[in-house]
Parts: sequence; structure tokens; C-alpha cells
Amino acid sequence: MATIKDIANKLGIAVSTVSKGLNGASDISDEMRQLVLDTAVEMGYASKKLRAKGTRKVCIFIENMDYENIDQFGYDIIVGFKLSAARRHWDVTVVPANLNMQTKEKYDSYMLKNGYSGAFLLGFTLHDDWVTQVQKTTVPTVLLDNYIDRNTHVGYVGTDSNEGIDLAVDHLYGLGHTKIAFLNGSKNSMVSEQRYQAFIQSMTNHGLSPDDKLIEYGYYVPDCAKDHVPTFLKHGATAIMCASDLIASGVIAEVNKLGLRVPEDISVIGFDDLPLAAHLLPPLTTIRQDRIDLGKSAFLLLDGLIHNVTISKLLLRAKFVQRSSTAPYKK
Amino acid sequence: MATIKDIANKLGIAVSTVSKGLNGASDISDEMRQLVLDTAVEMGYASKKLRAKGTRKVCIFIENMDYENIDQFGYDIIVGFKLSAARRHWDVTVVPANLNMQTKEKYDSYMLKNGYSGAFLLGFTLHDDWVTQVQKTTVPTVLLDNYIDRNTHVGYVGTDSNEGIDLAVDHLYGLGHTKIAFLNGSKNSMVSEQRYQAFIQSMTNHGLSPDDKLIEYGYYVPDCAKDHVPTFLKHGATAIMCASDLIASGVIAEVNKLGLRVPEDISVIGFDDLPLAAHLLPPLTTIRQDRIDLGKSAFLLLDGLIHNVTISKLLLRAKFVQRSSTAPYKK
Repeated sequence: MATIKDIANKLGIAVSTVSKGLNGASDISDEMRQLVLDTAVEMGYASKKLRAKGTRKVCIFIENMDYENIDQFGYDIIVGFKLSAARRHWDVTVVPANLNMQTKEKYDSYMLKNGYSGAFLLGFTLHDDWVTQVQKTTVPTVLLDNYIDRNTHVGYVGTDSNEGIDLAVDHLYGLGHTKIAFLNGSKNSMVSEQRYQAFIQSMTNHGLSPDDKLIEYGYYVPDCAKDHVPTFLKHGATAIMCASDLIASGVIAEVNKLGLRVPEDISVIGFDDLPLAAHLLPPLTTIRQDRIDLGKSAFLLLDGLIHNVTISKLLLRAKFVQRSSTAPYKK
Repeated sequence: MATIKDIANKLGIAVSTVSKGLNGASDISDEMRQLVLDTAVEMGYASKKLRAKGTRKVCIFIENMDYENIDQFGYDIIVGFKLSAARRHWDVTVVPANLNMQTKEKYDSYMLKNGYSGAFLLGFTLHDDWVTQVQKTTVPTVLLDNYIDRNTHVGYVGTDSNEGIDLAVDHLYGLGHTKIAFLNGSKNSMVSEQRYQAFIQSMTNHGLSPDDKLIEYGYYVPDCAKDHVPTFLKHGATAIMCASDLIASGVIAEVNKLGLRVPEDISVIGFDDLPLAAHLLPPLTTIRQDRIDLGKSAFLLLDGLIHNVTISKLLLRAKFVQRSSTAPYKK
């Protein structure tokens, strides 16, 4: 692994200048600091410094995900992460990330400059610059719902989609439904792809044929329901499985708008169990992701990676929550 | 959740007798103690008692797996588990399990009677009585290489077979091999099934057609090689991927017996990276399972389950280890 001296030699500058660059001293230029940091990252110095004893700072980067209020998806995840981190005496900083920030600075450089030993990335998509860079990072990094192949510094935490979708299909099948539609989230998301595969698998396992006309990708927002619910109903769906509670809230509204009732005419089931699920009309039957536990597990995993336990995936159980938006199929 | 009083009422005996039964007092009969324990388990009392503060005893049950010496598969797993447990001040007892013991006593009763808060099961097969019982257990339980559906008290720890097999196929493909045979472990094992699927998937991803005549199940012992290596060679295999290092050691011996050389004539690759892998002739190229980390992760997972973090799966990275048993394909 590179030393400060190696970096100085490579750049042909003094060791003291490298040291200033790495430690954020103010008496060198921004350009020189950036050059030192980029070279340090390139030479593999980053992880060495960040793994040194005494540094106990990690970071949560969050993008495309609401987390400010308790009823939003990211809130409890952050709470869970902080709870676990605090028990082990780690400081946690939450940093809203955006494309601009990702364009301006490389992920490893940002981590090194700010002295974070590792990070948890929430809500990033496969197209984000930093996610691309994470494929080669040497900084311990945990991604929610994104899996990176073959990099031993990176782990994936999430809820078991297979089990979640299967619990939902099982419930609807038990109520006599066979024409089950699936309104998925965004196409450009690993978790949507997982849920799609899980849906096909579970329908097949239940002896039902998945019908292409009853399976659509939308977005993780209520508004996507209006594009697909009319088609689902036209093709005979009696139950609609949704990839999130927000989508389900849109589906219920759309079903009502079309003059039908949930659950008497159409059963609707969500995914996540956000606080809003219990307050919808009717209260939503859904698949729970325990977000406090997701946060706790993300820290567990990150702590493992920081200590060279190369965990690749950590999946939590999905839990079935019965409320009132599903009912037996009536001919 | 049931109380001691509920158990006493149900059995029509004194609370003090129930208490004696649960705490292993010697002044009641064995039959009465067993009745109390079985009733307590049946009424869901077990997990309550075992989760009570102050109890910090967990157990490793091991079956069908060698672990007494440092060169055996189970040894480092137990070391890793004990290391993590010790850091959190948990006592660990290693109990060799066998069918007789499993027939004699139910899993939950055994755990309750001995005051274990949770257990890690190593080397069990899907047909074991206790694995069947684990499907309904309320005692926090971690299984190596076995997955139990839908029980939130049970977790699965293992190495990512997909990534491991893919690393091996990738390596052989890079050396120019296209007729790659796969000698798998026992058919009655979840991990063998995973590796079979992973092999098919990886071959397909590399544009190679998996050939039925080049894919066989064996056992996780060297001896199974002699049944399959001649057939593989007859059907043109130039490389043999093995589901364990022990199998690979048998394959190398068999190839030599047939008058061919490894790697000049046939490339051989193992799985596990047991200490013996480096000492084979030639030293074995293999896929490493980090067994210390498997043990550490198993404890992490068990600790999570004991604290109601319902982790379902925890997978570790597989690592490619290049030695001398693989070479470029020569026409």
C-alpha cells in the first residue's frame, strides 16, 4: 500500500505538502490539495488512512429518497443506522447527495478528504456517477437495494423481495384471486427487476400463469397508477399487487375514480408498510420492510466491511401485514 | 406469551413444580421435567425465557463436518464465531449433534433445558429432524448453507455461490477452455443445488453451452472422482470445476491414474481453499470461502436475531485464489 512518501515521489513535491493536502491544511492551493487527494486515491492510500485507528466517522449519502419526516421511507432507516452506530461509538453524518456533487468530485476523494471510514448510500440509481465509481472503490461502502459485483469493499443490504412478493401472492391466491396484476416501480432499479422476477416465480409456483397484459413498470409514486389501472381492469384483474405503498395509494384512488370499490371489487396490496399504509381508506394490506432494522443491518454490514469481513449481501425478512384492502374474490 | 402460571394451569401442577422443571432442579422426576419443558415450548414460553437479560449462552451444533483440526472445514468457522461472541461477552458451547440426539429430544426443548439463547447449526442436511423442527422454532437459530422460508427466528449464512462459480468459470474461459466439466457435491444439499444453478448461469453468460454429460453430482469427498472423471474425459472435458477442494484432490489423483497431467492436459479448480489446497500437487487453484468470516458473520446474524433484527440471509464474497492446477487450453 502507498505511503505519503510514495505520493510525494510520484508528484515530485515535498512530503509536508502531501501531508497538508491529505489533512486539509489551508496554506496550500485548492488545486494542489485536489491533486494530492486524487493521487492518494489512485495509489490506494485512501483505505489505509481511513482504516487507521481513531477515525470513527461514517457517512450516509441520500438521494432520490424522502427522509425528513417520520412518515417517509428514509427516516427510520437513518434512525436505525444511527442507533447501531451510536452503540459502537461511531459518528454519523447525513449528506444529501445530488448529481452536481457527484460530477464535481470523485467518491473516494470525497471520502478521503472528509475523513469518513465508510458510507451507506441510499436511493442511488445504477446510473449515478458515484455508483459507477463504487465498482472500483476501496472505501467500505454499503448500498441499499443495489448490488455491486466482485468488489470486496462493497455490500448490499435490502429486504428479501422473493419472500415479500411470495407472501403477497400467497395471500391473494388464498382469497381466490387468480387474475393478479402487478404494478411495479421504476424500470431502472435493481429492486424492481427483483420484484418482477419474484412475481413471475411466485405466480408460477402457485400454478397461475403470469399475464403480460397485467404486468407493468411504473414509478415509485402514486401518479403512475392512472396509466395502468384502467388497462388492468379491462383485462380482468381482480387484485393488484403494487411495488410500494405509494403506488398502492394511487391505485386505490384510481379504482375509486373508475367507480369501483376496494376491496369489494378489487383487492389492492402494497409493499413497504409506510406509516401512511394504516391511514389509507381502506387501510392497506401490505408487505412490511422493517426500516429500523434495515438501518441497523446497514451499519452492521458497514462495520463488518471496515473490519475486513467481506459481506456481500444482507437481506431482511419481509413481513405480511393484513389490513382491509384485500378481500375474497367474488364471481 | 405464556407465563409460568399458564404452564402450571395447563398441566394442573404447582407453579413451583413448573419452575423446578424449567430450571433443571433435581428433586422432580425426569418425566415431569420433560413434560414441563415440552409444554413450555408448545406454549411459546421458550423464547421469552431465553431472551431474558442475563442469559448470554449460545451453542454451536455440528454434524457431518470435521472441525477438530485446523485443516478441516469447520475449524476456522468455530474460531471466527467464538472470536465475535467473546467480544460481546457471550459463552459458546460446541455440541456434536447426531441423529440419535435429535430423535431423543426436540430442538426447542433442548435449547430451553440448557438455557441457550440461540444456536448456530453446522453441517445439517434438509432431512435432519432438527432442521424440520427449525422451520417452526421460536429460538434464534442460524444455519450454515441452509435456508428456511418464512421463519423470522431463523437466518442463513453462507458464501455467495453465484459469484464463486462465476469467478471460476471466468478464469477457465479466460484460459481458453470451453469444454468445462462440473463435479458437484451431494445432491441432497441446498448449496450443491445453488452451485449447479450458478454453473449453468455462468456458462450461459460466457456464451458456452453447459453439457449434461459434463455435469455430475458426487459427494463432498475425494472418492467420488473415480466415478465421473473417466466419463468427463471421454466426453472431451479440458477443465474440471469441483464443488470442493476435497473433490478436486480426488479429481487430480484420478486424472494422474489415467495417465494424464494437471494442469498440462487437464485444468482442475476447487472450492473452499482449505489449507490442503496449497499443498496438493500441483497446488490447487480454487475459490476461497473465508471460514473465519463465516463464523464471525454467523455470530453477527445470531446476535441480530436474538435482538429481533430479522435477518434472513447473510452472504460473504467468494475469492479467487490462483495457484498451479489450471493452465491455458492447448489444442
